[in-house]
Amino acid sequence: MPISTNKAFVKDRARCLMSINEALAVVCPAVSVKQAIGVYLFQNTLTTLGTERHQHIIEELWNQQALSALALTEVAHGSDAKNMRTTATYDQETEEFVINTPDFQAAKCWVGNLGKTCTMVLLFAQLYTGGQCFGLHAFVVPVRDPKTLLPYPGLIIGDIGEKIGLNGIDNGFVMFQNYRIPRQNLLNRVADVTKDGDYESSFTEPGKLLGAALENLSAGRVGIMQEGSNNLINAVTIAVRYAALRTQFGSDNGPEVPIIEYQLHQWRLFPYVSAAAVLKIFTTSLTDDYLNAVEMSNTDTAIDNLREMISEIHAIISATKPLITWTCLHAIQECREACGGHGYLKAARFGDLRSTVDPCVSYEGDNNVLLQQTSNWLLRQWSSVINHNTTHSPLKTCSFLTNCNEILSKRFAGSSVRHVKTVAFVTQTYEWLITYLLKNTHQKQSELLTTQCKFTARNNSQVYKAAPLSKAYGEYVALKYYWNHINEHVEADLRSILGTLGLLYGLSCLDKHLVYLLQGNYGNGSLVNYIQDAILELCNEMKKCAVSVTDALAPPDFVINSVLGKADGKLYENLRNELFRGDTCVPEILASKL
Amino acid sequence: MPISTNKAFVKDRARCLMSINEALAVVCPAVSVKQAIGVYLFQNTLTTLGTERHQHIIEELWNQQALSALALTEVAHGSDAKNMRTTATYDQETEEFVINTPDFQAAKCWVGNLGKTCTMVLLFAQLYTGGQCFGLHAFVVPVRDPKTLLPYPGLIIGDIGEKIGLNGIDNGFVMFQNYRIPRQNLLNRVADVTKDGDYESSFTEPGKLLGAALENLSAGRVGIMQEGSNNLINAVTIAVRYAALRTQFGSDNGPEVPIIEYQLHQWRLFPYVSAAAVLKIFTTSLTDDYLNAVEMSNTDTAIDNLREMISEIHAIISATKPLITWTCLHAIQECREACGGHGYLKAARFGDLRSTVDPCVSYEGDNNVLLQQTSNWLLRQWSSVINHNTTHSPLKTCSFLTNCNEILSKRFAGSSVRHVKTVAFVTQTYEWLITYLLKNTHQKQSELLTTQCKFTARNNSQVYKAAPLSKAYGEYVALKYYWNHINEHVEADLRSILGTLGLLYGLSCLDKHLVYLLQGNYGNGSLVNYIQDAILELCNEMKKCAVSVTDALAPPDFVINSVLGKADGKLYENLRNELFRGDTCVPEILASKL
Repeated sequence: MPISTNKAFVKDRARCLMSINEALAVVCPAVSVKQAIGVYLFQNTLTTLGTERHQHIIEELWNQQALSALALTEVAHGSDAKNMRTTATYDQETEEFVINTPDFQAAKCWVGNLGKTCTMVLLFAQLYTGGQCFGLHAFVVPVRDPKTLLPYPGLIIGDIGEKIGLNGIDNGFVMFQNYRIPRQNLLNRVADVTKDGDYESSFTEPGKLLGAALENLSAGRVGIMQEGSNNLINAVTIAVRYAALRTQFGSDNGPEVPIIEYQLHQWRLFPYVSAAAVLKIFTTSLTDDYLNAVEMSNTDTAIDNLREMISEIHAIISATKPLITWTCLHAIQECREACGGHGYLKAARFGDLRSTVDPCVSYEGDNNVLLQQTSNWLLRQWSSVINHNTTHSPLKTCSFLTNCNEILSKRFAGSSVRHVKTVAFVTQTYEWLITYLLKNTHQKQSELLTTQCKFTARNNSQVYKAAPLSKAYGEYVALKYYWNHINEHVEADLRSILGTLGLLYGLSCLDKHLVYLLQGNYGNGSLVNYIQDAILELCNEMKKCAVSVTDALAPPDFVINSVLGKADGKLYENLRNELFRGDTCVPEILASKL
Repeated sequence: MPISTNKAFVKDRARCLMSINEALAVVCPAVSVKQAIGVYLFQNTLTTLGTERHQHIIEELWNQQALSALALTEVAHGSDAKNMRTTATYDQETEEFVINTPDFQAAKCWVGNLGKTCTMVLLFAQLYTGGQCFGLHAFVVPVRDPKTLLPYPGLIIGDIGEKIGLNGIDNGFVMFQNYRIPRQNLLNRVADVTKDGDYESSFTEPGKLLGAALENLSAGRVGIMQEGSNNLINAVTIAVRYAALRTQFGSDNGPEVPIIEYQLHQWRLFPYVSAAAVLKIFTTSLTDDYLNAVEMSNTDTAIDNLREMISEIHAIISATKPLITWTCLHAIQECREACGGHGYLKAARFGDLRSTVDPCVSYEGDNNVLLQQTSNWLLRQWSSVINHNTTHSPLKTCSFLTNCNEILSKRFAGSSVRHVKTVAFVTQTYEWLITYLLKNTHQKQSELLTTQCKFTARNNSQVYKAAPLSKAYGEYVALKYYWNHINEHVEADLRSILGTLGLLYGLSCLDKHLVYLLQGNYGNGSLVNYIQDAILELCNEMKKCAVSVTDALAPPDFVINSVLGKADGKLYENLRNELFRGDTCVPEILASKL
């Protein structure tokens, strides 16, 4: 498996590596990141952007003769990759590229594995030849002697220091001064520089270029989504198990009540339980679509709508990577608080989970920046609808837009809680909401464009228009995948509880968009009551099965690794064992008491 | 100052200790907690609940011959203090109390300073004498030899282990088995047990009892509010200074734009900047009212409405301790994200701030539990309004309720953004909102009470009724104090910017309650647009002064202690110095480059 580059195996290999990464990430996140950056992503890039002359490096990686790192981010530039300032200038005399870092602001930084351990980096630098700049290109750059791990001369290299979490990764920075690498170290599948210094575009298979771009851009994000949905499961499992066992208060002279019985506590936790189920199934299904697209882009037959499909997957991931990572981060915090003081114990695990998930909202595409990618794509679809009454949505995540007039004229006509507790209601309401927000965003931008440039107009239509649009679209797509999966793959006897979970997730998300439903006259004050009452009813229905649901989702105890969240139900016994692990003073006379 | 118990100095002493604590907390939180628990709160309790025979302990504390801890929380009981199960049974033979911990669930735990260092604890235990239980009482219990710090026999004592943060505090647990203390160790100002074992209520000054209760309940919470508002200032200062210096993207061929220019970025940060200003001033003003009440309760003349005032202060604190701690926690997270990857550096400080503030939402009253205290008080006021058309609100935080009919009939009549950008609009809208939510909460509880007991009815009206009611009330009170302070104490030339800050805070908070404004027909879709447009306009107005505002609020650099948030504006120079502090490899030949 390791070094196969046989195209037929691309999909299986990718799935296999993703599964290993998922398993590793949930037990020991730093190791998974180290490996993902040090081997998988580098191999991906070499396979897709490199050519035959680079393939021997893959073998070195798998034989542990080399460890790599990806050097894109600079001190002063993260999201804005185009403006990176590191240069690689071709020197025809020696047939080498000469790498330079103009100043500290252009130092490559945050590079995982670079701080202490990697022997080579995949460097993104502005390629210059013949005095002309040809933009960002990727180079293989040896930085440390593999035998001694001492840096090569010509480099300023160091560790960026302690972080909030993930300190098992040695994130580093590096500056180059007239640092020379052979011409052949340019990854030349897309373009090459000849011995004589001529720049030549060498790419002839546009499908593969797209596929390569997709794989390189999205593999990391899909991985983050998988890890995020798993960490979300961990967090809710701990909090639900704790809530079922912890009692506090009670009516006069009555017994103490388990906190899971409190409506407010249910409302704080169960929407996150439903999110865990929906987002786990969504991520699994989306991974299939993603891997299919990767496979298709690696076949030799041209695929008609491959370009559209890849754009759509990019739009989906740009909305749902933020959705999953933020949901996970907020869930961890709510679960920490829902476990009270005991949740603040390191042994409860919430602190480590939070520190691990926290950077996921920033790296591999800052969440707020990614959301703009989605809204930009949706706005292109809207233009298409207006001008040609069509969408470019082969996965059909926004094909409903062609019915925009009908959709926008819809009003909620139900008259009871029952009418909102249906998949049809949630789906239709989301279609109305997305259409409404999309139309408003388009309108806002059109107005702004009369006096502002496109860049400014886009920026000034994010807050109450484009950003909520992308968020709503992400939730809608996650639910759509979830319900498709249930209908196609799930046994009838499981559909009831999975239906409850889907509705609770859908309605809880809609609860945050109610203002738009009222503002756009989709419904009135009664609709608000129906939705909120439905959420409380669903929470109440979930009370009896919340523990079973989390048991079904949860990994084994050693993975969750929380003193509050073990499957055995022995909360206080486990807490006691944990507390007595320290240097407790236990006089002999009292030992019997334990 | 240390051991003065002169009543005239009570207020000055409390203010002085609070100021020391505030200053210490922002530089070194663990030390401040250690001292607050180990000395201040213990002294408070001894002064208010103890009598002459306990005063020598205060001297020992200040002479560093003793360190104390407060042992209330048990493993299985936190918020529900009444159900603590540790017992102190009077033994007439020896004139001692015999302390017992029935099982591990009743072990005292999370007790700050108990893990390794304290020599005595203030123990809350159920007092038994003559076979009868008289409820929770406070006892001074020596637990360690002050010379050796070795625990006394009869105790199982230990450290609870690592926590998410504040590991400078040794939180501990303790179990007692037939552990004996002298009869005189009962704090006997409220009640005493005679040599013969008779229980006698000895308290004759109800004002002082109330005052004592207030001081003991609220001193810690007021301290948390002070620390929370200071940490909020720290977080926004770092993020605003970073945003002013960090550039990213730009229009075609235009210069790169500082991220503070982006509307979305302003909207993410500036409401928290306004919160920092409003909540800081509110906390300072409320502290005055709190200290006045403490002073009044320590004078010998009876105060008419002291009981009402103390209840009202308790209601205010129960709403605003949650408001401030949650706002601070959310702000820290948003600021971390707004500084991107660099925000994840430990040296950026957000990680430590978050770990420090995180437990504040749970201790000294869990936020969700406290909010119920406020709504319960408001519901009592509502009954008073219905039955006698009056409120018991000497601080006038809800006296407007007597106009409830007029208020509820009000509708927003404005027709432009200008009409919502006024103090009058924000105040009136909050009065409408609180009245609306209070009426609905009362109605909901009344309905539920026809089939449920009071306990259950209260629990089942929290989610969309009582909890948002308390939150809205907390915001309203904070703004009310803020505007009073500006009008009374601030020079005219500062009122413009302080007015902008107040409006931005008020409207940003109202933005989260818009659904209620629409549902209750206070306004329609246009009102939503006006409020949201006003927020964006105010953000834009703040752009030019955000740095000055945070400069005015911020403590010195060594206190903020963030590589991203120094006042000198040398972001990348500071980052470089920080990164090069590690074991960076700098070849001699390149040293000139730095």
